Amino acid sequence: MGPTGAGDRENTSDVDDVLAVNDAFYRAFETGDMEAMAGLWERSSRAVCVHPGSPAITGWADVERSWALLLAAPARPQFIVTEAIASVVGDAAWVTLTENIIVGGGSGAGTAVNVFARTDGVWRMVVHHGAPISRGRIL
Amino acid sequence: MGPTGAGDRENTSDVDDVLAVNDAFYRAFETGDMEAMAGLWERSSRAVCVHPGSPAITGWADVERSWALLLAAPARPQFIVTEAIASVVGDAAWVTLTENIIVGGGSGAGTAVNVFARTDGVWRMVVHHGAPISRGRIL
Repeated sequence: MGPTGAGDRENTSDVDDVLAVNDAFYRAFETGDMEAMAGLWERSSRAVCVHPGSPAITGWADVERSWALLLAAPARPQFIVTEAIASVVGDAAWVTLTENIIVGGGSGAGTAVNVFARTDGVWRMVVHHGAPISRGRIL
Repeated sequence: MGPTGAGDRENTSDVDDVLAVNDAFYRAFETGDMEAMAGLWERSSRAVCVHPGSPAITGWADVERSWALLLAAPARPQFIVTEAIASVVGDAAWVTLTENIIVGGGSGAGTAVNVFARTDGVWRMVVHHGAPISRGRIL
């Protein structure tokens, strides 16, 4: 589904490129691949990561530490991403999606917004904001 | 705190403009001002809103309906925004922040990512993703 906002400079290739990095993020998470995870983030002070239920972590050094801890854990969550919508405006992009998570025999769902910025032709993740969906919420 | 990503076209005026719309969003929420709320959103298919704990709502028509219901409720939450960081890349911008919420004699905190796009010189909200912070989480 494409956005309709006037002034867009979106094109299909950009959307595909952003979705590829978005997909690589979940694959790195699933496989516990810290090198891949570190490689797809923008290593800057504006890198921000919110793990579900947690306060924001700001700046690449702290974001990196949080992923190193998470990916070192034995649990390997599996992510089935649905309802992904990517929007591109120039050298910025964001993807909203539903994370369907299977881990340790249980399952759950969350929402996420992932923001990307393109520098020197390469899209990198600059914000990951994951949040739990509570059962029973209707609004 | 400014981002350090190479290739930025950020400037102080853009950041101020984005933060002004971000602030207007919380004032509209606090005062239940649906006209102000509707006026600051981009009315497009890519408008996405995630109320804390809820699935994503996509497209302006459904986003508008959700706000009409929320703002019609008698509860008037008060928001004290802290740790706001705004980043601008061309005609896109995002703000990450902590929402400190006082409502009905209780209080709580959440994280949010708000994404904005500039069309015809006007910054409008295109994504609001709010999430609860659970007490006791350390990561």
